[in-house]
Amino acid sequence: MAIDTAFTELSSFLGDRISRSKPVLDQHGGSETHFASAPPDIVVWPENTNEVSRILKICSHAGLPVIPFGAGTSLEGHTSAAKGGVCLDMARMNQILSQDPGDMIAQVEAGLTREELNHELRTLGVFFPVDPGANATLGGMAATRASGTTTVRYGSMRQNVLGLTVVLADGRIIRTGSRAAKSSSGYDLTALFLGSEGTLGIITELTLRLHGQPEEIRAGICAFPDMGSAVGAVQQVIQMGLAVARIEFVDETTARAFNQYAGTEMEECPHLLVEFHGSPTSVTEASDIFGEIVQDFGATGYEHATKAEDRNALWKIRHHAFYAVQSLRPGAHALVTDICVPISQLAKAVEDTRADIEASSIPGPILGHVGDGNFHAILLIATDNPDEMAEAKILAERMSRRALALGGTITGEHGVGMGKLHLMEEEHGFGWALMGDIKTALDPRNILNPGKLVPQAG
Amino acid sequence: MAIDTAFTELSSFLGDRISRSKPVLDQHGGSETHFASAPPDIVVWPENTNEVSRILKICSHAGLPVIPFGAGTSLEGHTSAAKGGVCLDMARMNQILSQDPGDMIAQVEAGLTREELNHELRTLGVFFPVDPGANATLGGMAATRASGTTTVRYGSMRQNVLGLTVVLADGRIIRTGSRAAKSSSGYDLTALFLGSEGTLGIITELTLRLHGQPEEIRAGICAFPDMGSAVGAVQQVIQMGLAVARIEFVDETTARAFNQYAGTEMEECPHLLVEFHGSPTSVTEASDIFGEIVQDFGATGYEHATKAEDRNALWKIRHHAFYAVQSLRPGAHALVTDICVPISQLAKAVEDTRADIEASSIPGPILGHVGDGNFHAILLIATDNPDEMAEAKILAERMSRRALALGGTITGEHGVGMGKLHLMEEEHGFGWALMGDIKTALDPRNILNPGKLVPQAG
Ligand SMILES: Cc1cc2nc3c(=O)[nH]c(=O)nc-3n(C[C@H](O)[C@H](O)[C@H](O)COP(=O)(O)OP(=O)(O)OC[C@H]3O[C@@H](n4cnc5c(N)ncnc54)[C@H](O)[C@@H]3O)c2cc1C
Ligand SMILES: Cc1cc2nc3c(=O)[nH]c(=O)nc-3n(C[C@H](O)[C@H](O)[C@H](O)COP(=O)(O)OP(=O)(O)OC[C@H]3O[C@@H](n4cnc5c(N)ncnc54)[C@H](O)[C@@H]3O)c2cc1C
Repeated sequence: MAIDTAFTELSSFLGDRISRSKPVLDQHGGSETHFASAPPDIVVWPENTNEVSRILKICSHAGLPVIPFGAGTSLEGHTSAAKGGVCLDMARMNQILSQDPGDMIAQVEAGLTREELNHELRTLGVFFPVDPGANATLGGMAATRASGTTTVRYGSMRQNVLGLTVVLADGRIIRTGSRAAKSSSGYDLTALFLGSEGTLGIITELTLRLHGQPEEIRAGICAFPDMGSAVGAVQQVIQMGLAVARIEFVDETTARAFNQYAGTEMEECPHLLVEFHGSPTSVTEASDIFGEIVQDFGATGYEHATKAEDRNALWKIRHHAFYAVQSLRPGAHALVTDICVPISQLAKAVEDTRADIEASSIPGPILGHVGDGNFHAILLIATDNPDEMAEAKILAERMSRRALALGGTITGEHGVGMGKLHLMEEEHGFGWALMGDIKTALDPRNILNPGKLVPQAG
Repeated sequence: MAIDTAFTELSSFLGDRISRSKPVLDQHGGSETHFASAPPDIVVWPENTNEVSRILKICSHAGLPVIPFGAGTSLEGHTSAAKGGVCLDMARMNQILSQDPGDMIAQVEAGLTREELNHELRTLGVFFPVDPGANATLGGMAATRASGTTTVRYGSMRQNVLGLTVVLADGRIIRTGSRAAKSSSGYDLTALFLGSEGTLGIITELTLRLHGQPEEIRAGICAFPDMGSAVGAVQQVIQMGLAVARIEFVDETTARAFNQYAGTEMEECPHLLVEFHGSPTSVTEASDIFGEIVQDFGATGYEHATKAEDRNALWKIRHHAFYAVQSLRPGAHALVTDICVPISQLAKAVEDTRADIEASSIPGPILGHVGDGNFHAILLIATDNPDEMAEAKILAERMSRRALALGGTITGEHGVGMGKLHLMEEEHGFGWALMGDIKTALDPRNILNPGKLVPQAG
């Protein structure tokens, strides 16, 4: 009933940018997640902030759930329409509104993807650094507080978003932040919406911080006798403050997967991939020091490249890792899990996780943005095998608890969604209840992406 | 009545760490501000988080205002007990709880000052970079989202606080953040309390991000023919991404003030002070490039020093600027005001401000952390001269409006307090109302530092 009325009202101004067709609803019922699909009742494609505001007014009046949808690459059931409602697909809001290399700022719509943005910026000598392994939207990345391979040098979305345009549950529009580099003007609303996973408001526009293309880039790779030495080398590199722009770990299984998937001939052992940005002098200096450190940890064959095509070939390994790993067990589902620990605890966290997975019946390669103390296990579960799924969930839960015991967090970058809801109180104590209070203040009828992130009534 | 009862209850466990004596109350009625003193009814000196929790339970039960007090160096009336109540002086909570150079982390109590912290860290090869011009407490710095001369390189409190222990209005204790470098685990409560100016909770402990002492430090100074060239040089340095660790501007009046105050012989013209951190090679490289840029802008006599005593002599100029400037008009009050603009608008903002002050009857040197687009005017007002005070307030207000018109913010680092309350709606629109909603959710009885930052009832 409410749905029918809303559909009529929404159709009046959205024209053909609204759908109730089953295939469309199914497409929007999940994301890259192990959760079962839960389709919305309606999908809409707004084209600007005012339309989003109008949609929100209708939905809040009708008490209908609203689920913002970016590229649907989130991994913890974030976009599932657990309680039905209206899915807001941001794909048509994909414009760059302004580029300002003088202030190192770009203003973009939330449905733009990071690859589209960097494609447009490439001739201007600037780039946007945050690069999750999927071609996510900037709005989705803001909403999950995403990070990536360059976060060790340039920061995550937290450091690279200067301001947002947000539509609140009742349709009011606010602009947070400014174009200035810093501010002490009241509560940090920008930071509040970063990581809020669509539960506090709809991000329609972002003011992003850009970075200058480095004069020189050098990428390198080296092989380690075992996981402990690779991770030990990372700890030393970070602790001494060596200016790496990227430092990524892949384990032996990932190396094997990559050889199978892409026909490369990597040694089937743990590797570090690294990159340096700067002047030719500083890059050489840092790369040489890196070479010495990894040698001390038993690494062999540290190769590096400055030419773009060689560097790109090297980083393909990392960027295709997820799909390569999935091909290890054709047809399997992946439960990808993500924790982050203080750098001093990285070796312990990785090794204990390795041992835990080896003692299980599930293949689970480990890889990650180790410079931040952040890593993932990709647990490969035979389709329609509830026993394996249950086992994988227990492994993932133990990883999260291990992270907490070591002073870390249950998720370094993927977020909470539904998958980590049951661990939030353990991490945050009363702080989780406080998140619920904030949610209620901003969205008293609980229409924004219900069922995610905050404590659930009942 | 309520005060008497509260005094009795608080005395029962605070012993002699509570006072109602008039001189003590007066000492806590203001800060480094142009606002008239408004003393609290009671001052207490808690010694740990549990005591703060106990105090908050009593005050929330009695509906008494609670005003946290760090070093009292804030500039916008932040610590004024506008509605009386209990001042929570954090001075006895000044311990370093743990130092962990391996993770580049220190855990400290909120009443510790930044100088005390760095004094303790000096032998460990690490330091905490955020350095407001006064010896503020880490809790006060967090509560104002403070920054300083090194923010252009190392960030402000926003980038350098990993987590907090906070006592909420009702006495509940929460711990935000973790020891990991990043997290996507729910709303960013750490960021919410940073800059909340004591209106959302009492910060009792902080987890801080430390940085390695650079291998080499080079500091330099150069003189410019006029303000426009100095600021133009800054814009170019920042836009090309040159890795400065500090870049500070002082105008000719500040230079003159310093000569009078400290007996130096600076040329009485605008200057830039700069510093580079890194390896000897990278520092030399950056300093050479800087030398070329400033020469293009007409600067003369770029001198630099790497020895600690020479560098310290140089930075004394900047660190004593506030007191030197005050000595230009003995006995005068200073209204220090603070805006921040996008770097491309810096020259315009500074020059328009200069012209505006010159057309007034008030002396007002300009100086600032220009690498962030942030600068201050120190307006010197004859004591007990309401006309000059009114004129100064209009100048300050015009600076804020100018910052907004240029895409910036009404305060880069000093915060809102009472002084900028009337400009918040202009900057944030509905966002300011949203700050009020968050305040009400966290502090429904409005006991935490009432009269500051958020919209005021009635
Ligand atoms: C192969 C692979 C590799 C990955 N690697 C990384 C990685 O390195 N780092 C990392 O951080 N993540 C990674 N991820 C996870 C995912 O890419 C990120 O979470 C990403 O930020 C999601 O963006 P999206 O556009 O796909 O958002 P969606 O999945 O569509 O949505 C994510 C959440 O944000 C909300 N949302 C989306 N748009 C908006 C908006 N405009 N306003 C408000 N809320 C909104 C949604 O409701 C949902 O809760 C990876 C995923 C895959 C499949
Ligand atoms: C000469 C001079 C130079 C300055 N230069 C700078 C500068 O370069 N950069 C800059 O950012 N600022 C600067 N300031 C302003 C001031 O030093 C900062 O605002 C500083 O962060 C205030 O810290 P404090 O300990 O003095 O806090 P206070 O003045 O005591 O309090 C500030 C605010 O924080 C609240 N507060 C204090 N402690 C806590 C706590 N534990 N929990 C919750 N709330 C708390 C108070 O209630 C108040 O609202 C300068 C001031 C002076 C006088």
